Amino acid sequence: MKVLIVGGVAGGASAAARLRRLDEKAQIIVFERGEYVSFANCGLPYYIGGEIAEKGDLTLQTPASFKARFNVDVRVNSEVTAVHPEQKKVSVRTAQGEYEEAYDKLILSPGAAPAVPPIPGTDLEGVFTLRNIPDTEKIKNYVEKHQPKTACIVGAGYIGLELAENLMALGLQVTVAEMADHVIAPLDYDMACDVHTYARKKGLNLILGAGVEGIAPKAQGGLEVALTGGSVEAELVILSVGVRPDTALAKEAGLACNARGAILVDDRMRTSIEDIYAVGDAIEIVNFVTREKGYVPLAGPANKQGRIAADNICGLESRYKGTQGSSVLKLFDMTVAMTGVNERSARAAGLNYDKVYTFSASHAAYYPGGHGMSIKTLYEKGTGRILGAQIVGFDGVDKRCDVLATAIRAGMTAYDLTELELCYAPPFGSAKDPVNFVGYVIENTLSGKVKNFFWHDVADLPRDGSVQLLDVRTASERKRGFIEGFMHIPVDELRERAQGELDTAKPVYVHCHSGLRSYIACRMLAGMGYDCYNLSGGWRLYDSVMN
Amino acid sequence: MKVLIVGGVAGGASAAARLRRLDEKAQIIVFERGEYVSFANCGLPYYIGGEIAEKGDLTLQTPASFKARFNVDVRVNSEVTAVHPEQKKVSVRTAQGEYEEAYDKLILSPGAAPAVPPIPGTDLEGVFTLRNIPDTEKIKNYVEKHQPKTACIVGAGYIGLELAENLMALGLQVTVAEMADHVIAPLDYDMACDVHTYARKKGLNLILGAGVEGIAPKAQGGLEVALTGGSVEAELVILSVGVRPDTALAKEAGLACNARGAILVDDRMRTSIEDIYAVGDAIEIVNFVTREKGYVPLAGPANKQGRIAADNICGLESRYKGTQGSSVLKLFDMTVAMTGVNERSARAAGLNYDKVYTFSASHAAYYPGGHGMSIKTLYEKGTGRILGAQIVGFDGVDKRCDVLATAIRAGMTAYDLTELELCYAPPFGSAKDPVNFVGYVIENTLSGKVKNFFWHDVADLPRDGSVQLLDVRTASERKRGFIEGFMHIPVDELRERAQGELDTAKPVYVHCHSGLRSYIACRMLAGMGYDCYNLSGGWRLYDSVMN
Ligand SMILES: Cc1cc2nc3c(=O)[nH]c(=O)nc-3n(C[C@H](O)[C@H](O)[C@H](O)COP(=O)(O)OP(=O)(O)OC[C@H]3O[C@@H](n4cnc5c(N)ncnc54)[C@H](O)[C@@H]3O)c2cc1C
Ligand SMILES: Cc1cc2nc3c(=O)[nH]c(=O)nc-3n(C[C@H](O)[C@H](O)[C@H](O)COP(=O)(O)OP(=O)(O)OC[C@H]3O[C@@H](n4cnc5c(N)ncnc54)[C@H](O)[C@@H]3O)c2cc1C
Ligand SMILES: CC(C)(COP(=O)(O)OP(=O)(O)OC[C@H]1O[C@@H](n2cnc3c(N)ncnc32)[C@H](O)[C@@H]1OP(=O)(O)O)[C@@H](O)C(=O)NCCC(=O)NCCS
Ligand SMILES: CC(C)(COP(=O)(O)OP(=O)(O)OC[C@H]1O[C@@H](n2cnc3c(N)ncnc32)[C@H](O)[C@@H]1OP(=O)(O)O)[C@@H](O)C(=O)NCCC(=O)NCCS
Repeated sequence: MKVLIVGGVAGGASAAARLRRLDEKAQIIVFERGEYVSFANCGLPYYIGGEIAEKGDLTLQTPASFKARFNVDVRVNSEVTAVHPEQKKVSVRTAQGEYEEAYDKLILSPGAAPAVPPIPGTDLEGVFTLRNIPDTEKIKNYVEKHQPKTACIVGAGYIGLELAENLMALGLQVTVAEMADHVIAPLDYDMACDVHTYARKKGLNLILGAGVEGIAPKAQGGLEVALTGGSVEAELVILSVGVRPDTALAKEAGLACNARGAILVDDRMRTSIEDIYAVGDAIEIVNFVTREKGYVPLAGPANKQGRIAADNICGLESRYKGTQGSSVLKLFDMTVAMTGVNERSARAAGLNYDKVYTFSASHAAYYPGGHGMSIKTLYEKGTGRILGAQIVGFDGVDKRCDVLATAIRAGMTAYDLTELELCYAPPFGSAKDPVNFVGYVIENTLSGKVKNFFWHDVADLPRDGSVQLLDVRTASERKRGFIEGFMHIPVDELRERAQGELDTAKPVYVHCHSGLRSYIACRMLAGMGYDCYNLSGGWRLYDSVMN
Repeated sequence: MKVLIVGGVAGGASAAARLRRLDEKAQIIVFERGEYVSFANCGLPYYIGGEIAEKGDLTLQTPASFKARFNVDVRVNSEVTAVHPEQKKVSVRTAQGEYEEAYDKLILSPGAAPAVPPIPGTDLEGVFTLRNIPDTEKIKNYVEKHQPKTACIVGAGYIGLELAENLMALGLQVTVAEMADHVIAPLDYDMACDVHTYARKKGLNLILGAGVEGIAPKAQGGLEVALTGGSVEAELVILSVGVRPDTALAKEAGLACNARGAILVDDRMRTSIEDIYAVGDAIEIVNFVTREKGYVPLAGPANKQGRIAADNICGLESRYKGTQGSSVLKLFDMTVAMTGVNERSARAAGLNYDKVYTFSASHAAYYPGGHGMSIKTLYEKGTGRILGAQIVGFDGVDKRCDVLATAIRAGMTAYDLTELELCYAPPFGSAKDPVNFVGYVIENTLSGKVKNFFWHDVADLPRDGSVQLLDVRTASERKRGFIEGFMHIPVDELRERAQGELDTAKPVYVHCHSGLRSYIACRMLAGMGYDCYNLSGGWRLYDSVMN
């Protein structure tokens, strides 16, 4: 069997290694357009910032090591320019000329290219995109040579924000301009607000709702980035506005692709043409939660799909069951993680979902060094099945998101979350883990023990006396800020004062700082015959979103 | 409804709070023998070491705060001395005298008391046990007053090791004497060996296989702790040899208990006598994995059981489905975590299990600060269902153990682990997570792609030429140590040299450092027609256990 692989990084290299482990005798050839294979795309921003010091650390395998360990023929600087499915061969271009190579099986893992907005100036000196090691070196060399003091990053996705942090580590003043109203597209707006506040506190100049309209050189040197509603001057500009499947080759070969150019595959990674497989950033995936088609370019899925393609080529039954979009960002000390659907995608998919916001300590409050983390969890009404989660905080965020990602894979409900028995000692968690609390809060909602309202409902609550708005925080908390129209009774005085000050005939909308004490207040009031509603996420979230 | 609760800490306080949230009108009285309720048992060692600076941080609620927030009548310094199920009342002893209190429902959460070995000298000055705040203060005061330079801790469980670390932080020379051959009973011996090496490297004097036989005062001051095969001198001795259910009260009341004194309950936390519930360290639990009866005194289960008891008293359908024993220890910078069954308990329960050892990086190797973690995973032969895991390492250990704990709750198999989509960015993990690798390695074993052998098989392998023993590490690794009788061919030379140097008629037993390269070697050799076996855990584990 002769297998050709196009692309020698995450998906392609993984497929090659697994193929060899499954078939010692197969002939395996990897074609890579660039100079490097098996490199750490995800580490590139950290090499720019110096966190990763050695360029050699960026490559996990070389053509030589691939040959020695896996007897794989890795051909770098070799671009596959055409696939000829009828003849089962590909055309390859190298500096030495063109040639053809026949295959029994072909795996495409060409990845995705940085999208370049159709605006003037993207080809100016000092304007970059980041995909691979040569791109990284260009940026690094430019910084070393020109010592820019300012940078503008267009696009506040993962890569844009990682680049911002790393350029700031080099001493640059960094502006990030984002067209949307919030950073990190798969986050919902409300959960992104904490990230905005934190990033700005760290000195990042974050401009939201600002599409890039053009880049122009300035007379006195440097660049001017024109944005909707303003402009930014910078000596270095990096465009990171997303990626596009790098699939011209596939389309020309006649492989079925979707409108954005992603290759269609089945759950065995087979394309529309026999004996051709595709994996990674080049393909359309099925969303694990919604079962809808989608596009999620991430390294974990790419590596796993590479292995699954190899398995199927060798006759094994591996299937790819869909992508959840589990992902995580370090931004200075902050961690932002998410898995499953967010509110926008749940709505778009027509899911019958509801949501809760919780705020829990990363570990036992009495042990030093803990931080609160803000969690938004989406679940299916009725069943309580967990659909997605977004977490913003510091230590322990990635852990809770991975537990929730596992729960989503397992099809767990909120009731199951209440029963999870996670490892507890004071430096690591609490006897009831933040994930247990997610379960409890949803369970309490599903069983009608509490009814929730949300930050986006607050403005519309009538202020005409027909409902009662109640803040149960302490006096000192209230001094630091409050919501107009909410009367004040601290939770610990509520039992005594409720009868005198609240009317059982009118609903009560209650809030505290995080939603916990107001939940307790709601249970108290419910027990006294009041109809009440709890502000999920509390003042903390409301304030983060509104102010 | 009038509910009495015996014990005002983890289980008892949790039950009281939940009861109030479910029933605003119930009369709830908590009896606590000691002076404090709702205190952080798990934080006590850290208060001794000074990591937790304020004594006030150790109490989450006080009788006053419980009254204000939950309208719960908390009576400290009030010991329940008898339960009279026929009359549905209890006898209470206070400094002011005895009285009786009637109940509709009674919850027992009396916890467990430190076991005191039946040896002479346990009541000497300078000898302590640790359960509650007064015990903690006694130790802290003794240290402050007598400024001991040496301490001996008897028993190397979680509490003993946490105490050792904290006393060392105060500058004491600490000996830990453990009767068993390894620390932390729920770990298997092989996984404990890394902990032994590390603890000793940190300066802990760890004596294993040393039961305590007596404690005696020394003429010149200080204490002599007599051990099997030796003795230790110390100015401070702490006994931490496990705990016993504190259930004299329950037994006298006629509640069914097991041989060790743990109260029998059903999955609603109901005891053998109507209207009496029991939770926490006082009860017998069902092992979630084996469904066998057992005893697992941990805070997470205690808190959750307290909530479940409250639910059932209020007519809700909550059930307790068993305890996994998920637990975690910080020891200096090391983290040791486990969940589900270990090898001893799997064998005792007659489970048809097998095991794999893996060693994976906590995060992408090219990003600084990562560490390897050693994982032992038990699974059911045939189905691949995950039964238990033990992990020893540094950062990220707790995360992987929580993911595995969640997988075990969900009844996941190794195949499911291969599909888990966990959050990946370089500071947090790898594109294929250590948990994915656990899945892959088990999958490869179940499907016959690799056959494993273990560190405990090595000595018995024939050295008579009937089998071939092969070390595929590099020459420089081999220089640092090797297993007698293993020939040496580095994996990257194996394809060329195998035919000339290995006989296809005889099985090959292969090892490398961690088991990964030897797996690759096995696949290579299998493809050439050899029958081969991979040393699971590799030289690393073998060396850790043997040397
Ligand atoms: C800066 C950066 C940071 C990232 N950080 C993260 C992260 O933290 N977490 C995460 O999950 N993901 C991250 N990603 C995404 C991740 O790297 C990709 O999802 C993954 O690499 C996709 O794998 P792939 O095999 O599909 O494509 P790639 O890894 O991009 O490999 C495709 C290769 O194919 C080659 N190729 C394309 N066409 C041809 C052709 N015709 N002939 C020959 N060769 C060809 C390309 O040169 C390229 O080297 C990051 C990406 C970048 C760029
Ligand atoms: C030093 C230490 C560290 C620990 N670390 C951890 C850890 O890191 N992780 C973990 O999971 N677990 C840990 N534990 C265990 C955990 O604290 C227990 O599992 C948990 O507290 C059990 O809860 P409980 O309600 O059953 O008993 P407890 O919390 O012990 O409460 C029982 C209370 O009942 C009172 N009582 C008993 N009998 C009577 C009576 N007749 N009348 C009135 N009152 C009575 C006692 O005075 C006691 O205060 C630790 C324990 C200790 C001592
Ligand atoms: C490194 C790379 C070449 C993949 O090679 P690989 O050999 O498949 O490496 P992996 O670490 O994924 O797999 C190791 C193999 O050893 C096995 N293994 C791991 N630990 C083991 C252990 N302790 N004992 C036995 N086997 C073990 C695994 O199961 C796997 O084998 P399998 O796939 O046959 O089951 C490819 O992932 C790559 O090029 N990566 C860099 C690019 C990239 O991923 N970019 C995106 C992220 S920055
Ligand atoms: C603190 C203690 C009194 C328990 O009190 P509690 O009020 O049940 O506290 P918890 O934090 O467990 O629960 C908070 C409640 O708020 C809810 N909640 C938590 N976060 C919420 C949020 N953001 N919004 C709404 N509700 C929230 C929870 O669901 C729970 O309510 P429920 O049980 O009715 O579902 C008890 O655990 C205790 O005494 N602990 C100290 C002793 C101990 O645990 N020792 C061992 C470990 S060191």
